[in-house]
Amino acid sequence: MAQMTPAFIAIDWGSTNRRNFVVDEAGCVLRAERDGKGLLSVPSGGFGAEVDAIRSRLGDFPVVLAGMVGSARGWVNVPYLSAPAGIDDLAANLHWVEAGKTAIVPGLADVAGDVMRGEEVQLLGAVAAGLAPSDSLLCQPGTHCKWAHMKDGKIATFSTAMTGELFSLLRDHSLLADFLTGDVRDGVAFRDGVAAGLRGSLATLLFRVRAAALLGGRSVEDSAAYASGVLIGHDVGGARIAPGAKVHVLADAHLGELYAAAIAVAGATAISIDSQAAFLAGMNRIWKASAA
Amino acid sequence: MAQMTPAFIAIDWGSTNRRNFVVDEAGCVLRAERDGKGLLSVPSGGFGAEVDAIRSRLGDFPVVLAGMVGSARGWVNVPYLSAPAGIDDLAANLHWVEAGKTAIVPGLADVAGDVMRGEEVQLLGAVAAGLAPSDSLLCQPGTHCKWAHMKDGKIATFSTAMTGELFSLLRDHSLLADFLTGDVRDGVAFRDGVAAGLRGSLATLLFRVRAAALLGGRSVEDSAAYASGVLIGHDVGGARIAPGAKVHVLADAHLGELYAAAIAVAGATAISIDSQAAFLAGMNRIWKASAA
Repeated sequence: MAQMTPAFIAIDWGSTNRRNFVVDEAGCVLRAERDGKGLLSVPSGGFGAEVDAIRSRLGDFPVVLAGMVGSARGWVNVPYLSAPAGIDDLAANLHWVEAGKTAIVPGLADVAGDVMRGEEVQLLGAVAAGLAPSDSLLCQPGTHCKWAHMKDGKIATFSTAMTGELFSLLRDHSLLADFLTGDVRDGVAFRDGVAAGLRGSLATLLFRVRAAALLGGRSVEDSAAYASGVLIGHDVGGARIAPGAKVHVLADAHLGELYAAAIAVAGATAISIDSQAAFLAGMNRIWKASAA
Repeated sequence: MAQMTPAFIAIDWGSTNRRNFVVDEAGCVLRAERDGKGLLSVPSGGFGAEVDAIRSRLGDFPVVLAGMVGSARGWVNVPYLSAPAGIDDLAANLHWVEAGKTAIVPGLADVAGDVMRGEEVQLLGAVAAGLAPSDSLLCQPGTHCKWAHMKDGKIATFSTAMTGELFSLLRDHSLLADFLTGDVRDGVAFRDGVAAGLRGSLATLLFRVRAAALLGGRSVEDSAAYASGVLIGHDVGGARIAPGAKVHVLADAHLGELYAAAIAVAGATAISIDSQAAFLAGMNRIWKASAA
């Protein structure tokens, strides 16, 4: 068996988490790390030392970084590229911290006034790896859920809904907090919430979570699932998916299942994509294009 | 000049504030107090002593209480009346803590799964005092904004939007917090937000508050006014006001001005109502009906 030769280190560096991958010429992962060293835990001016430490552990290879590490709170505030943008546009606009050695992938801006940092690699990587068609609708649920319309293999337009963050705010700090202690899972309460959220007024539906529990219309155990359904239904409704359309969803199993259910209630079909495979495919394409 | 004879004490007892009024036979206020002794600052079992203290200051008169004091967190959890309900229904269903001496006004429930406690007195009092027609749409902005359709002088249906609470959550705890430090006042940014919020998806528009500031599309100083406009526009849009309709608004001057502007952007007309006059008219009618 041939010895695989490491080509570069790909880092997905977000606000709270970090994933580091040693990737070979074929785009395969030789070694992977995951830790909580998100940029919020790195002191200003400490990013160079962090990357040095990664190289000392994983090997002295070129490093390509994506995510919030390229923001004002990160290492360097790399200017956004404007959508439409493809994988070659990302590669051509890498910000080289050290020429040929350490680069940061730029984020994207949408003309409607939206931004992303990090998700662009996964979205374009999904298409590059053949996990999603060149013309398709992709969804990345999370704290800030991204919806991207792909056209000719590029991100044509995108929008973000702060769905996950709103749920956390309500659960942790609102007058609903006492009513949002139950599990969130797909089921009758969740789908009732989705159906309401697809059409109704969010601020009114959320108030009624508490009212329904007070009036005995819904158990407290079901209220968190219903509220999550309302928020995800609002999110899916805002994406205005064409009836019968396919949505390619990049998410972990739990959130992926909830969005798949909500997308089904909205009359469309969800197709699950492995987001790590999409990220690695994207980073490999960026690396190869930049080294060409 | 004749000496005015006190008839009863009306108390508007909310979660954080309390207002006490000595009212005469004609419904005029002889004496008023306002303090921060909301029910969250009263220990369980301490409400009787609080009312004794009020009587020792203001005189030994019958006391009628309205607001969250009649909730599970208050003195007694008084059952909700179902809408439609008029002022006589409230009077006939007073909860007498002590017969003929101390009574709590019941809150209302809407069949769609909504509740109110305290607002029903203002809404029905506004009609009783001739401040709003018997058939009209009333709006009470605040932490939880109430919209009530009055029919034949009764509250026929109502809904609540957690508009004010969502703004507070975003300003105090969200990733938008750093961008919501400016003043909220009527102006271009506020009205831009209203126009967007009337039609757009709330969770997406809120994310773009931060994106617009990052991209230079809107100053941080204007961002709080825009975000408030988005939330109030979402609220007004959810009320589905008929074009050209009149909305009677019970609010303080600042919030009343913001809602009047948003209602105008939505193509309707706001008419401001003095909420204290409405409350006192409502309590006086309840007192007279109960004593009849």
